[in-house]
Amino acid sequence: MKMVLLSGGSGKRLWPLSNDSRSKQFLRVLPGHGGTEESMLQRVWRQLGDVGLQQAAYVCASRAQWELIEAQIGDVPFIEEPERRDTFPAIALAASFLADEGARPDEVVVVLPVDHFVEDAYFRRVAALERVLTESGAEMALLGVRPTEPSSKFGYIALGHLVKGVEARWVQRFVEKPDRAEAERLLADGALWNCGVFCFRLGYLQNLLEARGLPASYAELRAQFPTLPKRSFDYEVVEHARSVVASSYDGTWTDLGTWGSLAEEMAAPFVGLGDAVDCRETHVVNELGIPVVAMGLKQTIVVASPDGILVADKAQSAGLKNVINDYDERPMYEERKWGSYRVLDLQKLPDGTEVLTKSIELRPGGLISYQKHLQRSEVWTVIDGHGQLALDGRIAPVAAGDVIRIYPEQWHAIRSEGGMRFIEVQRGPALVEEDIIRRYLTWEEVVQHCSVGIR
Amino acid sequence: MKMVLLSGGSGKRLWPLSNDSRSKQFLRVLPGHGGTEESMLQRVWRQLGDVGLQQAAYVCASRAQWELIEAQIGDVPFIEEPERRDTFPAIALAASFLADEGARPDEVVVVLPVDHFVEDAYFRRVAALERVLTESGAEMALLGVRPTEPSSKFGYIALGHLVKGVEARWVQRFVEKPDRAEAERLLADGALWNCGVFCFRLGYLQNLLEARGLPASYAELRAQFPTLPKRSFDYEVVEHARSVVASSYDGTWTDLGTWGSLAEEMAAPFVGLGDAVDCRETHVVNELGIPVVAMGLKQTIVVASPDGILVADKAQSAGLKNVINDYDERPMYEERKWGSYRVLDLQKLPDGTEVLTKSIELRPGGLISYQKHLQRSEVWTVIDGHGQLALDGRIAPVAAGDVIRIYPEQWHAIRSEGGMRFIEVQRGPALVEEDIIRRYLTWEEVVQHCSVGIR
Repeated sequence: MKMVLLSGGSGKRLWPLSNDSRSKQFLRVLPGHGGTEESMLQRVWRQLGDVGLQQAAYVCASRAQWELIEAQIGDVPFIEEPERRDTFPAIALAASFLADEGARPDEVVVVLPVDHFVEDAYFRRVAALERVLTESGAEMALLGVRPTEPSSKFGYIALGHLVKGVEARWVQRFVEKPDRAEAERLLADGALWNCGVFCFRLGYLQNLLEARGLPASYAELRAQFPTLPKRSFDYEVVEHARSVVASSYDGTWTDLGTWGSLAEEMAAPFVGLGDAVDCRETHVVNELGIPVVAMGLKQTIVVASPDGILVADKAQSAGLKNVINDYDERPMYEERKWGSYRVLDLQKLPDGTEVLTKSIELRPGGLISYQKHLQRSEVWTVIDGHGQLALDGRIAPVAAGDVIRIYPEQWHAIRSEGGMRFIEVQRGPALVEEDIIRRYLTWEEVVQHCSVGIR
Repeated sequence: MKMVLLSGGSGKRLWPLSNDSRSKQFLRVLPGHGGTEESMLQRVWRQLGDVGLQQAAYVCASRAQWELIEAQIGDVPFIEEPERRDTFPAIALAASFLADEGARPDEVVVVLPVDHFVEDAYFRRVAALERVLTESGAEMALLGVRPTEPSSKFGYIALGHLVKGVEARWVQRFVEKPDRAEAERLLADGALWNCGVFCFRLGYLQNLLEARGLPASYAELRAQFPTLPKRSFDYEVVEHARSVVASSYDGTWTDLGTWGSLAEEMAAPFVGLGDAVDCRETHVVNELGIPVVAMGLKQTIVVASPDGILVADKAQSAGLKNVINDYDERPMYEERKWGSYRVLDLQKLPDGTEVLTKSIELRPGGLISYQKHLQRSEVWTVIDGHGQLALDGRIAPVAAGDVIRIYPEQWHAIRSEGGMRFIEVQRGPALVEEDIIRRYLTWEEVVQHCSVGIR
């Protein structure tokens, strides 16, 4: 059995903690083991470990998320989505990737999203899906969630007869976002919420892709990726399957998609520097280095991050997505494989010059690989630790107190053994993606290139 | 007539905008002329100008406030309080200063606080106090505020007969913070609130100081300042005077001492970057470079500054003083004579080293005069403008793009003609006042010292 974890899109509804590079599944605000805080991704990964499914897992995500995923759950096989195009293209790409890796057509594949908050029992049901598929002989086995209310926000799976020998039923039909009256009828009939967990044999999807004239190889499908329909796997595949069964999960299930719902599950009412006085049902998350003081608030969420500050009535936080479109600025905090950075300041000068001041932390062993800016200059003031710098073909040790000046067009890389911090002042024309040219080299390769000259 | 403006203490009740160097009277949040925002000090100064009293004014304040006062209202005679010791010592010192400057014993002195928010009529009454004093022949003439409610928070001036020829009455007695029942009786009898405006002849106070064995000269009184009683001028002088008259002012008077009261007078419900959606009776002040989004709030005050973030129910904001004692950190924003700075980041490393990153802006002509650190190093990255640098006995032009490294013990000064910005990374042991040694030289003196060598 192979498991494909879909790491979904950028959640503007959890601004200012989520941004283009940090979606909600990466926010470390949930209670982990031993008083630590963990993210949804880390929680799902831990829960997969508990049912022995980590070894089967592949993560399907955008390149922008890759380093963060590795930083949070370690080295895991990675399937890169060239761009965000809904679940059908993503799962099709994952299938071709698995086949290229040697998976046979009768290999069972389970797909599940990582941005859901669920109990351990959910993963025991996921682990059992392979047997449900096999025993039923269906084309597709789903996991459905036992509804707690006749909500109009979800898709429903209407069920029929029991499947012999396993805890599952045959699926009669799918109902997308019914009105309340129909939702009540569906509940009475034992329908389940569709939570986006799909189980099928690799060959089933391969045949389907072939029938649509899509290539079987990963490289070819990847090249065609931008032309694939932006549609869900439910719509393109599941609803057209001839035989579908569903197993049910009865427990907590939420996508924690709004501050109101996320606050319910948070590890602590106050995370970060500061204090809350005479507050009720109020949650504060402060990622800044300055204190937040909350006084006399009720049912309020306060979130301060380098991207911005949100103060919202919990009930109204669902409308956030529409409000913050104006503040779609560059991410002010990013976790990377080599460490993390915070933007301290961004000044736009009258002549168009931008000055970006960052605090950068390299983790022990962290490497920022070879790169150069075409137009921007950088000044690094090393404030803690030590490491090795490659600058324009030369290698030199650097340590706290050193000041490094990097001109445009100079190749530079830095690596630290025991961890290192520096302040970067970057200055130049407004940043465009094309200004920075990266080479993903190991440190040994950087050193080698230095001796032969990379330019 | 001489006028002494008392620039009061540090208002923790308006944290995070007020701090040790920036008290509430300096906050630019009130509506000024032509859509600009002005501070209480600037408002009082403008109102004094309207009644022709600016020329008579002296400002009595601590050294820490001096540069900010000059930045806000320009060059005004300054009387330095060596430390904060209540109004009696401050006014005594001011009297000796005026005498040293040649004021005669029959000179009329008016003292008034600058941290009150009042209408223009107030200053017309202040201007009339000299005549009230002269016509009545009293030792002391006060201004009192017509009460709007039987408050127990203020001192009351109980009045008797009219003074002949001027709009004033003889004072019968002073009542400090009466209970509500007595306050109601005082209101019914026409008593006034004491608002700390005192008018007397210089000689009257000089005699009183002499009788207490205090020196007449400014230098000597200044030297004795730390031994003077920490008591109010009301308690030490006014309540013991044999004949006191009071003129009344009937209009808005508030000290804007809490966020709840300050918000009432603010120029706009939202100052700074960001947006408020579906909020009622809510005020936001954002001094940070990141957006604040407020959603669905009622009667709430949100204030974000480099010192911290306050989110408070307006009615509870009066209790702030007790809450924020824990956050009595270094000021994160300061306006100075030469310009201003913002602290972008403060990191405390495990070995005790502190790293302070600041964004510094020199106004046109701004000079940071000669100084050196004994233990801290600095790296300046000039990001905009140009100027001249004096470093360790040498003068050199500097401009955007330059990086200046300043080691401990190196004397340095910088001046800009047309304005200049730089990012400073300061690194060293935890900052103590003794680490920095300053010389208050003009640029010409700095240049001269450079040629002869200052060390």
